[in-house]
Amino acid sequence: MAKSRFEYVRDFEESDAVMKQCFIVLRIDGSNFHRFSDKHGFVKPNDERALLANRAAHGVMQIMPDCTIAYGQSDEYSFVLRPDTTVHGRRRQKLVSLAVSKFTAVYQFYWAHFFPETALLYPPAFDGRLVLYPSDKILRDYLAWRQVDCHINNLYNTTFHSLIQKQGLTASESEKRLSKTLSKEKNEILFQLGINYNDEKDIFKKGSVLIGAENRKENEGEIDLWEAQSSEESKHLQKRQVLVLHVDIIKDPFWQRYPNLLLPLE
Amino acid sequence: MAKSRFEYVRDFEESDAVMKQCFIVLRIDGSNFHRFSDKHGFVKPNDERALLANRAAHGVMQIMPDCTIAYGQSDEYSFVLRPDTTVHGRRRQKLVSLAVSKFTAVYQFYWAHFFPETALLYPPAFDGRLVLYPSDKILRDYLAWRQVDCHINNLYNTTFHSLIQKQGLTASESEKRLSKTLSKEKNEILFQLGINYNDEKDIFKKGSVLIGAENRKENEGEIDLWEAQSSEESKHLQKRQVLVLHVDIIKDPFWQRYPNLLLPLE
Amino acid sequence: MAKSRFEYVRDFEESDAVMKQCFIVLRIDGSNFHRFSDKHGFVKPNDERALLANRAAHGVMQIMPDCTIAYGQSDEYSFVLRPDTTVHGRRRQKLVSLAVSKFTAVYQFYWAHFFPETALLYPPAFDGRLVLYPSDKILRDYLAWRQVDCHINNLYNTTFHSLIQKQGLTASESEKRLSKTLSKEKNEILFQLGINYNDEKDIFKKGSVLIGAENRKENEGEIDLWEAQSSEESKHLQKRQVLVLHVDIIKDPFWQRYPNLLLPLE
Amino acid sequence: MAKSRFEYVRDFEESDAVMKQCFIVLRIDGSNFHRFSDKHGFVKPNDERALLANRAAHGVMQIMPDCTIAYGQSDEYSFVLRPDTTVHGRRRQKLVSLAVSKFTAVYQFYWAHFFPETALLYPPAFDGRLVLYPSDKILRDYLAWRQVDCHINNLYNTTFHSLIQKQGLTASESEKRLSKTLSKEKNEILFQLGINYNDEKDIFKKGSVLIGAENRKENEGEIDLWEAQSSEESKHLQKRQVLVLHVDIIKDPFWQRYPNLLLPLE
Repeated sequence: MAKSRFEYVRDFEESDAVMKQCFIVLRIDGSNFHRFSDKHGFVKPNDERALLANRAAHGVMQIMPDCTIAYGQSDEYSFVLRPDTTVHGRRRQKLVSLAVSKFTAVYQFYWAHFFPETALLYPPAFDGRLVLYPSDKILRDYLAWRQVDCHINNLYNTTFHSLIQKQGLTASESEKRLSKTLSKEKNEILFQLGINYNDEKDIFKKGSVLIGAENRKENEGEIDLWEAQSSEESKHLQKRQVLVLHVDIIKDPFWQRYPNLLLPLE
Repeated sequence: MAKSRFEYVRDFEESDAVMKQCFIVLRIDGSNFHRFSDKHGFVKPNDERALLANRAAHGVMQIMPDCTIAYGQSDEYSFVLRPDTTVHGRRRQKLVSLAVSKFTAVYQFYWAHFFPETALLYPPAFDGRLVLYPSDKILRDYLAWRQVDCHINNLYNTTFHSLIQKQGLTASESEKRLSKTLSKEKNEILFQLGINYNDEKDIFKKGSVLIGAENRKENEGEIDLWEAQSSEESKHLQKRQVLVLHVDIIKDPFWQRYPNLLLPLE
Repeated sequence: MAKSRFEYVRDFEESDAVMKQCFIVLRIDGSNFHRFSDKHGFVKPNDERALLANRAAHGVMQIMPDCTIAYGQSDEYSFVLRPDTTVHGRRRQKLVSLAVSKFTAVYQFYWAHFFPETALLYPPAFDGRLVLYPSDKILRDYLAWRQVDCHINNLYNTTFHSLIQKQGLTASESEKRLSKTLSKEKNEILFQLGINYNDEKDIFKKGSVLIGAENRKENEGEIDLWEAQSSEESKHLQKRQVLVLHVDIIKDPFWQRYPNLLLPLE
Repeated sequence: MAKSRFEYVRDFEESDAVMKQCFIVLRIDGSNFHRFSDKHGFVKPNDERALLANRAAHGVMQIMPDCTIAYGQSDEYSFVLRPDTTVHGRRRQKLVSLAVSKFTAVYQFYWAHFFPETALLYPPAFDGRLVLYPSDKILRDYLAWRQVDCHINNLYNTTFHSLIQKQGLTASESEKRLSKTLSKEKNEILFQLGINYNDEKDIFKKGSVLIGAENRKENEGEIDLWEAQSSEESKHLQKRQVLVLHVDIIKDPFWQRYPNLLLPLE
């Protein structure tokens, strides 16, 4: 029974369940994160403390058990839900808002753990979107797109900051020096500065791949067993362990090694 | 120029700008907040520390300058954007995700300020949705719907907990006692327990109404001048001061007093 | 009970009910009508036989009783449904497809009646779309937009064809002559050719406005009492009589004269 | 340049391009066709003149060259567009409205050809919808769903009308007799009336399958070479010849025989 004559306004809420049997990608991006990383003194080009983002992603995987794989780089993270998931009725806004809220909350909750010597000056914010992909092939191309983007940006940033840190260029000189250079030329510049880009850490060159720990083979990768700050949080964490990898997901071997990631679970 | 052959996957992102010239309501709800309030020992039926939600709402109003009025009660908050706003291209997911992320982040950021003696055991999460309303009248009915809901729930909760706290009933006895009672009967029960419901605080009976401080008349209400924890946050805060009221928004006088709230700003 | 294991495919049909309390406009446009009018020898610039379109619009008004006003010009027609209509559950595709189908069918059904000496060489086709308008004001602006378009096109076409028919210009000479001319200059050209544009028929200068016959005042306008070709069709026709007007709908007097057109019927 | 200050109303038209790389199904259904077939004396249970629907479907395939297969039965027709089609920008309303309009128009245009002794009493109307299917498998299940529906309805109708025509039952007696009977029992009833359902014509048992004539193998099926009523229409027809089949499309052999139907054309 309606509690008041105003209840009719509920009918203005539109149904927003997304199409069945398509992969659901939830992508989260930092909002104005350039400023955030500057104000909090992130090490350039890459700060290992930024792994906090992986911790936040782990939190999202806890509340989205149908997420089979997540991929993160820089200040963005993508979560892939199985095509047959029925979680939250596949409602677009519910899925996007919960994922973004959880990501934001966990990021902030563990800030002090990852940045023990840097006070959080103001709360970070993220935005999110849901995109559907109808086939395995296109879903893989989506993830490849993000990993290629990671590669391009990381090579650029590594070269850009090396020119500043090792050769004393200003930011604008460095930018100008790199204008229109190809990957090969950036590798060359790095080599002359004594850096072999291939020796850079995979976590920065390839980003982070999170999959359920049940997929682990022979001691590979690292099981994410974060030290929970409280017993309440740790109860959550034990629900679902995730494996963190820093590997190529563009070519076939990864997908051959973990064939379950693209298959609906029976 | 496309950076890679995978760029085509971007075309799967759908345009989601919402209809022009309709009021945009962004509603945020606590996710599993019953558990959250239990675990953190919120005082029943109402905990003044829960005003933290107003602080979080203030944060959302900072990043949504076209929000003319926000209304909150319990663990939910609604933000009304002017019908002619073009903020973020009126994109549904962008607006919902940013509002939810900001609300989540600020809520957590000021936790220790409002709950100085209660550690945050785990991060709270919220969900969100965007609803369009085509006219002043229906928008007012929406807000009335939420305030009636506040009234009904608060009267129920006040009576429910009074029966437990003052008469020693168990939760299930109290629930049974109140089953199918009308408002009048609940008022009667409270009266017999020595409580005049009319004397309860307006903030709990009517919820909280946030409007831009520029609407203030003659020392009315309370300007929200939160003590910022850091200079960075306070820079944000000074952008937009808000006025916090606990008044009836169902009847006409409120809207006659603040006619600008429903008019597009020239 | 499902009749077969294939029934699940129905779940891929998306709900497409449109927002409540907005005016629904169904606009129908001729598809490739330039060719159609050429092949069937329509008189230029205006052919009175093209009134067949009004007959087709009448047919749509028969099956859309919540259509309070329709406006047509050239090969397009717009139908306005009351904001509170619930016809066909306000489903977008149902409304668009039925309106287009009915318009197409009636247009063809009465072809021989309007073009007794011209055989229909091939069936004409139309497309359609549904647009929502949230307020009286914007709905009126929509109709004004169409009537201004009618005026601009008709003045151009009248001048264009007069230059050809009265001064022996070729089509491309006439087009060149009119390039970048203002309305005033076109009126001047017509005047020199012995034509006072004001004396042209209102049906061409203003288009056609269809409203329910119950709105008629004192013998005004023309009740559409088409001679039905069969008793079956005439049963339909008697359901709803419409009044055909050729008047200004941009300024206020029309809307003051028929205030019911914008009000939900009680 | 805007022609008038009213042009802004165009911005209320929403973009409705459908998701890429999904099969597009356009389904057209007769609107109130039970009455239409009664009034025009269609032979029961099946009237060969109703093949007029195939002619109308051919018309739709002319304007939708990316339609690789269409399937029709009773008063409904489904058109499958290749997943990579870009026709009309994949706009939902454009596709639905054009297909429905063309189907309606051609159906009526050739009425006299198929029903030479029955005057068209009033114009028939159809409605339409667009449904997306993300994979070959689900698209095949969709078509199987429609063909199973054809089988179930045709067996029922054949038995229902045989009981009336051969045993003198009334319609309600026949309906009662068939209530809750299984397929096997209906076959048995037919057998006792001297009818072997297997001997019924495939066009009624299996419906009609239309594919491009370029798929034809060894004189199979029938090329649709309708005698055009006018040279204009025949110009259209020669654009695309279609092959009409009445075969099983549920099992694999059909799809193995015509593998191109599910593949994007290179």
